Amino acid sequence: MEKKLLMTPGPTPVPESVLLSMARPVIHHRHPEFRGVLKEVRELLKYLFETKQEVIVLASSGTGAMEGAVSNTLCRGDRVLVVEAGKFGERWSDIARAFGLEVEQIEVPWGKAVSAKQVKSMLEKGQHRAVLMQASETSTGVRHPVKEIADYTRASDTLLIVDGITAVGVFPIPFDEWGLDVLVTGSQKALMLPPGLAFACLSEKAWKAKDKSDLPCYYFDFAKERKNLETNQTSYTPAISLIMGLQEALRRIKETGLEKVFAEVALMAKATREAMQAMGLKLYAPDSPSEAVTAVLVPGGIDAGQVVKIMRDKHGIAITGGQDQAKGKIFRVAHMGYISRGDIVAMIAALEQTLTELGHSFPSGHGVQKATELLA
Amino acid sequence: MEKKLLMTPGPTPVPESVLLSMARPVIHHRHPEFRGVLKEVRELLKYLFETKQEVIVLASSGTGAMEGAVSNTLCRGDRVLVVEAGKFGERWSDIARAFGLEVEQIEVPWGKAVSAKQVKSMLEKGQHRAVLMQASETSTGVRHPVKEIADYTRASDTLLIVDGITAVGVFPIPFDEWGLDVLVTGSQKALMLPPGLAFACLSEKAWKAKDKSDLPCYYFDFAKERKNLETNQTSYTPAISLIMGLQEALRRIKETGLEKVFAEVALMAKATREAMQAMGLKLYAPDSPSEAVTAVLVPGGIDAGQVVKIMRDKHGIAITGGQDQAKGKIFRVAHMGYISRGDIVAMIAALEQTLTELGHSFPSGHGVQKATELLA
Repeated sequence: MEKKLLMTPGPTPVPESVLLSMARPVIHHRHPEFRGVLKEVRELLKYLFETKQEVIVLASSGTGAMEGAVSNTLCRGDRVLVVEAGKFGERWSDIARAFGLEVEQIEVPWGKAVSAKQVKSMLEKGQHRAVLMQASETSTGVRHPVKEIADYTRASDTLLIVDGITAVGVFPIPFDEWGLDVLVTGSQKALMLPPGLAFACLSEKAWKAKDKSDLPCYYFDFAKERKNLETNQTSYTPAISLIMGLQEALRRIKETGLEKVFAEVALMAKATREAMQAMGLKLYAPDSPSEAVTAVLVPGGIDAGQVVKIMRDKHGIAITGGQDQAKGKIFRVAHMGYISRGDIVAMIAALEQTLTELGHSFPSGHGVQKATELLA
Repeated sequence: MEKKLLMTPGPTPVPESVLLSMARPVIHHRHPEFRGVLKEVRELLKYLFETKQEVIVLASSGTGAMEGAVSNTLCRGDRVLVVEAGKFGERWSDIARAFGLEVEQIEVPWGKAVSAKQVKSMLEKGQHRAVLMQASETSTGVRHPVKEIADYTRASDTLLIVDGITAVGVFPIPFDEWGLDVLVTGSQKALMLPPGLAFACLSEKAWKAKDKSDLPCYYFDFAKERKNLETNQTSYTPAISLIMGLQEALRRIKETGLEKVFAEVALMAKATREAMQAMGLKLYAPDSPSEAVTAVLVPGGIDAGQVVKIMRDKHGIAITGGQDQAKGKIFRVAHMGYISRGDIVAMIAALEQTLTELGHSFPSGHGVQKATELLA
């Protein structure tokens, strides 16, 4: 009878009404009923991305949309600047190299945000065709200064290509207002869906770059998708059940209102960070934390893997450890999507017990007290 | 209160138990519970493909796996032979050209199967690195002679790359025994799932070709996926809910047994074809029909679009028309996956009413009588 709580930085919990939407019998994707769904979803996605542009809907994980962001807008041999501040920054470099681009990296220590000034100074020297970066680096819990970088790229020929997988629907990242060129996201984060859908939005500047791009791109051909979306269709068979769920999830986001969603997530993120500190823990990314995920350093002598294991096996709460160089050093919890204030308190309470069991000494109850106080 | 029946050649109906499996709360893809699911799914996929090779699981539509089949095994400038006998044959050519391959086509009239002899004679002259073909061409309802072509390619350096999207789980296409090199399929046909998953199986010869391939491939990198599958993981976040459904669907296929599934589908296909002819209709692919889908020529003066519309709006049965050059000329019905004998009879009965309404004259009841007789 154990009740489980999913608090990993993706996938995130799926609301019951979305699960039930997806469990409806499958309908044909070229028939009027599904086209009606897609028509509504197109408008709701524009609301979510805060854009007048079409948002491309792909059957893939977020990485597929990242690949498409590169393969649709760049040319063989193009020089790109990648902000590498974690595992997903490295993924941009890997994708760019796989497509024969010349990659220059800004290597930012894990847990830190890039400085917009540094990006600007490198762009001035480097003649890069694009900057590739994360808005929120899920592996470290850092938020990067996308707006400040966009303020520079907007007036230049450089494309600003942003992975918003743990940003869109988490904190404000208004596509048109900030003047981003490509923004991608996935379904299993703030969108409250299972993984399997990815999305991409392109600026006029990016669509012009698409015309000149010479990289091979077929399944992820955004121009073909945009053309098909005009008649409420996709180029290839879409992930129908996930799109039925998407309709329901986006309706809920719209009904709540983006501003309210952002405020709620920000409050839960703040409560989580302060509760962790009240338990004597140190944040992995104290200076520029992402509202999507909090990364916490485990105290000396304690194995992060044990924290994750006890949280899962004894308390039924799924959190995750660190990846690559942060493995064993940190654990991560999410506060985006279908997560409530009560979930945050429950997670902190379980964490207090877990850390006590593992020998970490701290004033008992302080974490829960801090979280409760801030969330009240 | 209208009860609907989905009889399109993809998507196909999803069993209630599979819908409910997918509606379970999402679990994390790197945690033990999901890894256990993936471990079982890997074994069940080997049973389905009749292979000892690993079957790659992708979050994409079937077209993604087709792209990966090309981008993982071939090199820029390679010469390939494409069997173009319908819309999906053309898709192979489009993908191959997008990746800079040199394409030679065998243009087969729509509704006809390619001759193995012709393929063999072109291969002898042409030094092609690969043959790209469909096992079942969904747009025309034709089945191609894969085994006979494999008998030739198996002993040669040429790779045989087969789109089995409406073949795997529909009729026998034993990967190891026939010596195919790449076989791909999608989730929304015989696998009784919503669209959103694709699969690919590679022979030793194909894996060796992968080592030499120089085409850009990141999201669809099969070698990376194979390595991750060894520890019951995928390279990127998998479509978790669809894989939960896949576990249930593959269990049902295994419990029934492939032989029995094939026999049942073949019987329903035969009954459908003969019932159509008993209604005075002509088959679009009489010589080498696929067991997955029956394509039927509409009688002169009747609009295929009207047949589809009346079947959907008056009878609640979804079938599809033709694509591209077959548009307006044919309609198509499927008999793979979660389709019962009763569904076939119901579809034929509704079709009799529909065609009568549209002015086609035929001996009333003969279609239903023939279908019932054969299915009894």
